[in-house]
Amino acid sequence: MLGGGFIGRFYADALHGHRSKDRVVSIYSRRQESVDRFMKDYGTPHGTISMEESIAHPDVDVVCIALPNNLHEQAVQLCCKHKKAVICTKPLARTAEEAKRMLDAVEKAGIFAGYLEDLVYTPKFIKAWESVKNGALGRILWAKSRETHPGPHSEWFWNLEEAGGGCILDLGCHCVEIARTYIGKDIRPVEVMCWADTQVKPIDAEDHAIALVKYENGAIGQFEVSWTFRGGMDLRDEVMGTEGTIWVNSFLRTGFEMFTTGKGNNYVAEKAESNSGWLFPVGDEINELGYYHMFTEMFRCMENGTQPRETFYDGYVVNAILDAAYKSAKSKQWEPVKLDVWRGKTGVTKDSHLVEYDADHYLVKEEMTHYGARKIILKDKKTGKIFERVEH
Amino acid sequence: MLGGGFIGRFYADALHGHRSKDRVVSIYSRRQESVDRFMKDYGTPHGTISMEESIAHPDVDVVCIALPNNLHEQAVQLCCKHKKAVICTKPLARTAEEAKRMLDAVEKAGIFAGYLEDLVYTPKFIKAWESVKNGALGRILWAKSRETHPGPHSEWFWNLEEAGGGCILDLGCHCVEIARTYIGKDIRPVEVMCWADTQVKPIDAEDHAIALVKYENGAIGQFEVSWTFRGGMDLRDEVMGTEGTIWVNSFLRTGFEMFTTGKGNNYVAEKAESNSGWLFPVGDEINELGYYHMFTEMFRCMENGTQPRETFYDGYVVNAILDAAYKSAKSKQWEPVKLDVWRGKTGVTKDSHLVEYDADHYLVKEEMTHYGARKIILKDKKTGKIFERVEH
Amino acid sequence: MLGGGFIGRFYADALHGHRSKDRVVSIYSRRQESVDRFMKDYGTPHGTISMEESIAHPDVDVVCIALPNNLHEQAVQLCCKHKKAVICTKPLARTAEEAKRMLDAVEKAGIFAGYLEDLVYTPKFIKAWESVKNGALGRILWAKSRETHPGPHSEWFWNLEEAGGGCILDLGCHCVEIARTYIGKDIRPVEVMCWADTQVKPIDAEDHAIALVKYENGAIGQFEVSWTFRGGMDLRDEVMGTEGTIWVNSFLRTGFEMFTTGKGNNYVAEKAESNSGWLFPVGDEINELGYYHMFTEMFRCMENGTQPRETFYDGYVVNAILDAAYKSAKSKQWEPVKLDVWRGKTGVTKDSHLVEYDADHYLVKEEMTHYGARKIILKDKKTGKIFERVEH
Amino acid sequence: MLGGGFIGRFYADALHGHRSKDRVVSIYSRRQESVDRFMKDYGTPHGTISMEESIAHPDVDVVCIALPNNLHEQAVQLCCKHKKAVICTKPLARTAEEAKRMLDAVEKAGIFAGYLEDLVYTPKFIKAWESVKNGALGRILWAKSRETHPGPHSEWFWNLEEAGGGCILDLGCHCVEIARTYIGKDIRPVEVMCWADTQVKPIDAEDHAIALVKYENGAIGQFEVSWTFRGGMDLRDEVMGTEGTIWVNSFLRTGFEMFTTGKGNNYVAEKAESNSGWLFPVGDEINELGYYHMFTEMFRCMENGTQPRETFYDGYVVNAILDAAYKSAKSKQWEPVKLDVWRGKTGVTKDSHLVEYDADHYLVKEEMTHYGARKIILKDKKTGKIFERVEH
Repeated sequence: MLGGGFIGRFYADALHGHRSKDRVVSIYSRRQESVDRFMKDYGTPHGTISMEESIAHPDVDVVCIALPNNLHEQAVQLCCKHKKAVICTKPLARTAEEAKRMLDAVEKAGIFAGYLEDLVYTPKFIKAWESVKNGALGRILWAKSRETHPGPHSEWFWNLEEAGGGCILDLGCHCVEIARTYIGKDIRPVEVMCWADTQVKPIDAEDHAIALVKYENGAIGQFEVSWTFRGGMDLRDEVMGTEGTIWVNSFLRTGFEMFTTGKGNNYVAEKAESNSGWLFPVGDEINELGYYHMFTEMFRCMENGTQPRETFYDGYVVNAILDAAYKSAKSKQWEPVKLDVWRGKTGVTKDSHLVEYDADHYLVKEEMTHYGARKIILKDKKTGKIFERVEH
Repeated sequence: MLGGGFIGRFYADALHGHRSKDRVVSIYSRRQESVDRFMKDYGTPHGTISMEESIAHPDVDVVCIALPNNLHEQAVQLCCKHKKAVICTKPLARTAEEAKRMLDAVEKAGIFAGYLEDLVYTPKFIKAWESVKNGALGRILWAKSRETHPGPHSEWFWNLEEAGGGCILDLGCHCVEIARTYIGKDIRPVEVMCWADTQVKPIDAEDHAIALVKYENGAIGQFEVSWTFRGGMDLRDEVMGTEGTIWVNSFLRTGFEMFTTGKGNNYVAEKAESNSGWLFPVGDEINELGYYHMFTEMFRCMENGTQPRETFYDGYVVNAILDAAYKSAKSKQWEPVKLDVWRGKTGVTKDSHLVEYDADHYLVKEEMTHYGARKIILKDKKTGKIFERVEH
Repeated sequence: MLGGGFIGRFYADALHGHRSKDRVVSIYSRRQESVDRFMKDYGTPHGTISMEESIAHPDVDVVCIALPNNLHEQAVQLCCKHKKAVICTKPLARTAEEAKRMLDAVEKAGIFAGYLEDLVYTPKFIKAWESVKNGALGRILWAKSRETHPGPHSEWFWNLEEAGGGCILDLGCHCVEIARTYIGKDIRPVEVMCWADTQVKPIDAEDHAIALVKYENGAIGQFEVSWTFRGGMDLRDEVMGTEGTIWVNSFLRTGFEMFTTGKGNNYVAEKAESNSGWLFPVGDEINELGYYHMFTEMFRCMENGTQPRETFYDGYVVNAILDAAYKSAKSKQWEPVKLDVWRGKTGVTKDSHLVEYDADHYLVKEEMTHYGARKIILKDKKTGKIFERVEH
Repeated sequence: MLGGGFIGRFYADALHGHRSKDRVVSIYSRRQESVDRFMKDYGTPHGTISMEESIAHPDVDVVCIALPNNLHEQAVQLCCKHKKAVICTKPLARTAEEAKRMLDAVEKAGIFAGYLEDLVYTPKFIKAWESVKNGALGRILWAKSRETHPGPHSEWFWNLEEAGGGCILDLGCHCVEIARTYIGKDIRPVEVMCWADTQVKPIDAEDHAIALVKYENGAIGQFEVSWTFRGGMDLRDEVMGTEGTIWVNSFLRTGFEMFTTGKGNNYVAEKAESNSGWLFPVGDEINELGYYHMFTEMFRCMENGTQPRETFYDGYVVNAILDAAYKSAKSKQWEPVKLDVWRGKTGVTKDSHLVEYDADHYLVKEEMTHYGARKIILKDKKTGKIFERVEH
């Protein structure tokens, strides 16, 4: 385990709690104090402040990178050197260029490499995505993902050099991959329009951003990310298709509501803001955030010698989209997504919007009105004229 | 009452149902059949297919325009000619230019003129807006309004000439005024970025659009509008402020849930898509959509000789913002909002994002972590360095 | 208006706010101070601490009783004496015996008499009840109403002599009439089982109670009432029918959610417990609680000379059911509902539970299982044997 | 694994899906066809229609009973004979008498015996229960659990001899243990009042029941169970304490909402009733229903030689409470819970309801009114008089 901070501890909880056989055997952290605390808390036999020592440790089968963004590449290169399987937290890198170097390195080294995008592994996401694949929503038109909260936990997030960006990089990476998965990972993201600002925090990076990502088939991905939200951690996805809608609330409204006058002051949930009044805990945070399902798939793939659902290539595509978002926030224009390598479909065109009604007409709409009539609105294919038929 | 269609009937229901003394005394519609049906259904004594005849009718105190968008200006000009008070449905006009002519006309004629933007009169909006004015959310950072449904009721909406646009004009006008009211109607809207597309319907106008509206103080308004949504009518507002959050669901989730196997097939709610399974009716549609409170305020102001909360000037500002949205959807750039007349504040600058902690530091964040520690993250005013203090 | 306390003021708000022509012309209260404050706040021309003087005042067309329970009968008798129409707050009386005397008095005097049971006039209830009448839920099996909050506002509620009881009388009266209306007011309530206790408050009356009311057709009404609930005012109805389900949340979850750190400290909603954290206001309290629709119906009926939906007879039936509840709480047995006068259906028998499948079988159930099979469970009419047919 | 039906397959999914090392090594079912299908679906090496053969199989470490209720005792006795650890589905037995024999048998045999009450192992329950133990709700006053759905899956449930009862036994066992855990498993259940009826299904057993369970400290447990509910599976708990409230919705409203016109017809969730319209799937059914956490605790305890949270003794107490419920449904009186063995606290008395305000007064209530006043309602300790202090 590389990194003993917030996310490193979360990962360790997930790893130890789920599959009975997985153990953290070595911990690296930049501070000896963190190494010591982690070893004590998780019963980890080996600890060090030398990254390479931890990676090279003979008991280590797989290296889990839970470090600040600016250290990911270095860690990956060391994994390549020591031929160790590697799984890396999100975002993969600070830029697509950096991500591309990491992708090339692991592919050249021939090591297993997984991208730890937990939010496409949440139980709700998996179920929703299955419904989408089964066609329950028809053709996907729009997929929005929102992640906002009152700001990250560790100090390095707030440092532009270490983090490489603000909430776009920290939270947008989740949202981009969620929307991309709903729309289809084989559909090429074409261009991005993004607004970003520093509205509240005394920092240089953005603390609030909204972006649209256009895909080759005409579908739109959207992200809303912020470190200025008040009220807890708001994790919601919304998907619109020609045949249906999905709304997923992953954190603040999950069917668990508690009012308390404030006795029994304890930790409620990640990024909750209060210990009294109406609170909205989740049942099992690690499960709801997808960690169990993510690690299970990663380890199964590693054992079976197959590719996991989320690879370094996915991390690279996400970084390329985020690069375009940062560029757009400055240029105030739609910016193209630059992908030197594209492994999905090519030649995709925009989906048609002409729904056949009969030989002579397209169907615009049918409905029931509040005064009890049934209406059909049609468009004549030849004349283009739109008219309605009402049945009382 | 000008117009006997969907919205005209809704207005009549509201007018007759609420204040016991208000009555529709004359109905104009373009089709004699609609005139007849309306007169019969509402017991209206006078009906005609001549717009001017209805407006000029001596019993008419106030003219309510519930006509297709392309007829608003003509109706307003006739009201000016006959010196009749006028209230006009939304959007005020098809373009800001048209709206400006209408505004100038009513002001020159000196007649009462109200803009029927019902969604800033819903009981929930009124309550939420009071909280915002009282400071419960602190400084407003972002106000989003979403209105999506499976498409409008009347055929003229689908005709680009009559309607003047698609869902941006039809639904965006609501959302723009909602966000503008939360942010402050005296704060100037500066520029707009908009995506729009025709994804599903066989029409020329857009059936789905998303836009950001930037205000002079740095706040962002957002609208999400669509005629392609499946599942009913989705009316939601979300507001983020430095001190709080508001989520309003005005239609699809209001605390009323019904499952039925489908017996008792009746009208459930505006734009509901089904009569069986889980349904989400609202208690009193006319009230929930703000019609009662809107007409009450309009008539009180008319009686008292004061300006209503929503005037033709507001309608004009909304049209100017929508014009910029249409332009941006084509140019793929942020487009300035062109306002020849601005009656709000001037010289507003972007709000500061530096929160004082003590003499030497800005406060970045404070929080409780999941392992029980309390963290304060600070920024040194001089060095700009960000660091954390942890208390276990 | 008799009574200038919490409920009297609520009524006055409703009366003045809604129909433009209704005015409170005289206020009676037991304390001069309350009379003075009410006259000032509502611009009421006449005030007195003599109940009879107020009732007899020549400008008074209808007397609205908003007094402690022990004064209802006296007020009604005075209305009979002065032949004034009367509308009385809930519960009608402290016991069925008292209610019966009031019922007899108004019927003998021939005056208009309405029972102010507002919660069967809420917009949601009205809509839900229409669905039930239209058959959307099939045959009604069970109707539960829950009203719990942290305790009433005025001191007299806590005095057993003045109030006549605790939360059963105060809140149970609402719930009983709600359930009765869903099940059918013409179906005779037969017997009641009730648990009641004083769990938290230092009082003699009960502060928490749950009861079941059995109707002649086998349907069950249920109430859950408490003055010990924490978190606001919980007003929920649940109805089960053979063809569907209704869930109504009238207060704490109505699609309006607000988080605030606590700036802008103002009144949020009736019986809310906090001004910070997550709050759940309602849009328009008076409307959501049914006051507008209730008074509108009352006054229309008075003007038209018809009976309102809620009469003193209904108040009497409610009191009879509550009497049985109190008796059962002591006897720990089901207690019969004693109704000397019954104006509904007679000879009703329990509904059948045998659903025909075909000539030889009753249908027990059909369903889809999680492994993709379709099951039909049948009962042989002759042998009584239950068996399943599975289709993969 | 004993039993290859609905619940047996659910258990197998949980066992195979979670801890990587656990496997079903032998399957017993009464029908060879079920044995064959199970062996094929789960890759189980051994299968038989002889219960004893399966239990005695040398590779079997622990026997999981997933059989109809009337076969539990026989299976347990065989486990005792062959000294195999045993875990048994709910309810433990058909009556307390039967449960007592099973309890005595396993204790005499000295084998590990766990009671598979999954719903006290759901992630939400575990979190809620921790809050209760931490005092977030103060003293528990009332704990309700509701489980209703359109009826069970297998034919034997509908057979009174095999099942031993209707929805009280099938669903009430869950609810009783949930309420008991919230209130405290060391608090003795004293008496039960129950209503039960057969309202819809053509069966002899009850298909709808409601009961109250009184505990020695004055707390009330409540269950609402039914096989007649329409709309899916309704699993909700509500807990009231002196300092707070908990609402848990475990199934129908968990933050996942989907509308679909009906394309992509697939299994949605246990006991869902439709494949179109608004649907409410859960993310990971097995996790949400507590199976993972239940089996994990059972196996850990077995490995560590400790008692699991849910033992045969708990199953016995549950059966004793349900026996009293059945008796009460017939006698129409509160019936005592007969427990020959009581292992919890004794001599518990009812909690006091007198809250100290100051030396001379008890506190009845304090609150904010809608007209802005702050009220304190007090009771004089000596005179017993209740009065209010209002601060404007």
